[in-house]
Amino acid sequence: MLLHWAYLAAIAAEAMSAALIAGRRSMDWFGVCVIACITALGGGTVRDVLLGHHPLAWIEHPSYLVVTICAALATGIVAPFMKRLHKAFLALDALGLVVFTVIGCNIAVSVQVPFFIVVVIGVITGTFGGVLRDVLCGQVPLLFQKELYASISLATGVLYLGAQKLGVGHEVAMIGSMAIGFALRMLAIRYEWNMPKFVYKEEWD
Amino acid sequence: MLLHWAYLAAIAAEAMSAALIAGRRSMDWFGVCVIACITALGGGTVRDVLLGHHPLAWIEHPSYLVVTICAALATGIVAPFMKRLHKAFLALDALGLVVFTVIGCNIAVSVQVPFFIVVVIGVITGTFGGVLRDVLCGQVPLLFQKELYASISLATGVLYLGAQKLGVGHEVAMIGSMAIGFALRMLAIRYEWNMPKFVYKEEWD
Amino acid sequence: MLLHWAYLAAIAAEAMSAALIAGRRSMDWFGVCVIACITALGGGTVRDVLLGHHPLAWIEHPSYLVVTICAALATGIVAPFMKRLHKAFLALDALGLVVFTVIGCNIAVSVQVPFFIVVVIGVITGTFGGVLRDVLCGQVPLLFQKELYASISLATGVLYLGAQKLGVGHEVAMIGSMAIGFALRMLAIRYEWNMPKFVYKEEWD
Repeated sequence: MLLHWAYLAAIAAEAMSAALIAGRRSMDWFGVCVIACITALGGGTVRDVLLGHHPLAWIEHPSYLVVTICAALATGIVAPFMKRLHKAFLALDALGLVVFTVIGCNIAVSVQVPFFIVVVIGVITGTFGGVLRDVLCGQVPLLFQKELYASISLATGVLYLGAQKLGVGHEVAMIGSMAIGFALRMLAIRYEWNMPKFVYKEEWD
Repeated sequence: MLLHWAYLAAIAAEAMSAALIAGRRSMDWFGVCVIACITALGGGTVRDVLLGHHPLAWIEHPSYLVVTICAALATGIVAPFMKRLHKAFLALDALGLVVFTVIGCNIAVSVQVPFFIVVVIGVITGTFGGVLRDVLCGQVPLLFQKELYASISLATGVLYLGAQKLGVGHEVAMIGSMAIGFALRMLAIRYEWNMPKFVYKEEWD
Repeated sequence: MLLHWAYLAAIAAEAMSAALIAGRRSMDWFGVCVIACITALGGGTVRDVLLGHHPLAWIEHPSYLVVTICAALATGIVAPFMKRLHKAFLALDALGLVVFTVIGCNIAVSVQVPFFIVVVIGVITGTFGGVLRDVLCGQVPLLFQKELYASISLATGVLYLGAQKLGVGHEVAMIGSMAIGFALRMLAIRYEWNMPKFVYKEEWD
């Protein structure tokens, strides 16, 4: 199944970029693997815990953990070439974002929650791995300050579910929404699209 | 039901004060909404996850999420008048603290945990939204360093449950404990009551 | 039961060392108790939430919370003698690490997850209390940067399960793996054994 392979590529990509961030903080290899696992599998874990959906994906399929850990360790070999691979990585990361979102929506639909919550769960699946990574690395989550990222997860989820409501077939809706979300993310990086910020400087409290 | 309306006012107030904190960090509007939701609904979410109490409140009632997000967005309009509204906000925040605590106790009672744990769950419901907010904003939780806050949640919970044990009617116990907790919180702010601190300065480890 | 008493000693030790860390940040006594509880009981809580294993240990046995809170408060009395007790504490902390790991493995076995996941759950039980403590105290988790700690939890879990697979009796496997893990940890502290670090300094992204 296409989604399955895209998922494995996505968790490997997330693991590798997380490993680089851990490496910049000079973590030991154990820490690198933990950060990689939490980044790649954390969004899905938060989703399953919030939905009470057990067993968790990586408990049922330990191979996901193995892929993540291998990808994190492989980063040590790839690191010197990282600069050249930078663009490939951004693309894989964008793939991860839309794949995670669609999988999150699918699972939320399967446990029958309201439409609005399905989208929220999709966004949580797509983005919370990165939020957990940033918290563990001691920085304010990038998610809230960088160019369009979470909003693309939101757009992908709305397109995916909206298209199905309008009668579009499941596979077409899935591939279409993922393609559009992926394209939007690449454009957002290329042209540095940003969400408007809320800047509040008065002292209060 | 009184508690329901007080709850909606409380999550809106928590969302707005969280939005201001996010605004001071120049987060984008998406981040502002995420921080607002986590602050307003995080305490209840942690409670439900710890109790294994599904579905979560905001998954069953998506309107809670809608109220929170609207309140966060409205903060952009209200922000310039914030200084003048400062006192109203502190009062709404104090209301939130006691309302969240009582609701948390009710849910803990409904799943039949020991008395002591009911109070702990009430305090977690009342205070953990703020803890999550501070962690995501990259600061040591204020909870542990400010004037009486969590202790008022504790007092409210003990009063509420203790009064019922002593035969006081449910409604009277609820309104009475909330009124006393609210008054204590306002007095704590007015007179800057603090918990004694544990200051340990020796180097160890 | 030996494991039970070792567990109580371990949560008390974890609570006391967490209280000292909170004291260095001048937290109030309420914050000190919260940090102590999260450190001592957080690993087991994360484990139970991930496994969907309810009720949580401290909800079923509130005495665990009482022990933890008393240990945290007692730290105020013991603090002046802390330097002299330093070595006793490191030993109790090492005991905690192996006890938590073995208990975590036992619970994971009882809910029938794959072998690899049993070890992962054991390590999470052994180490995540400290991770949560560090996140709440606003520092990058020590776990990822200090001498061998999580890897000893891993070794203990693998030894414990491996020995049982090879036909060693349950009690012997338990005491043996805990003794070896404990000895390794003490040696790691004594000789400052470290995991190799992944240091990545190129700017990327």
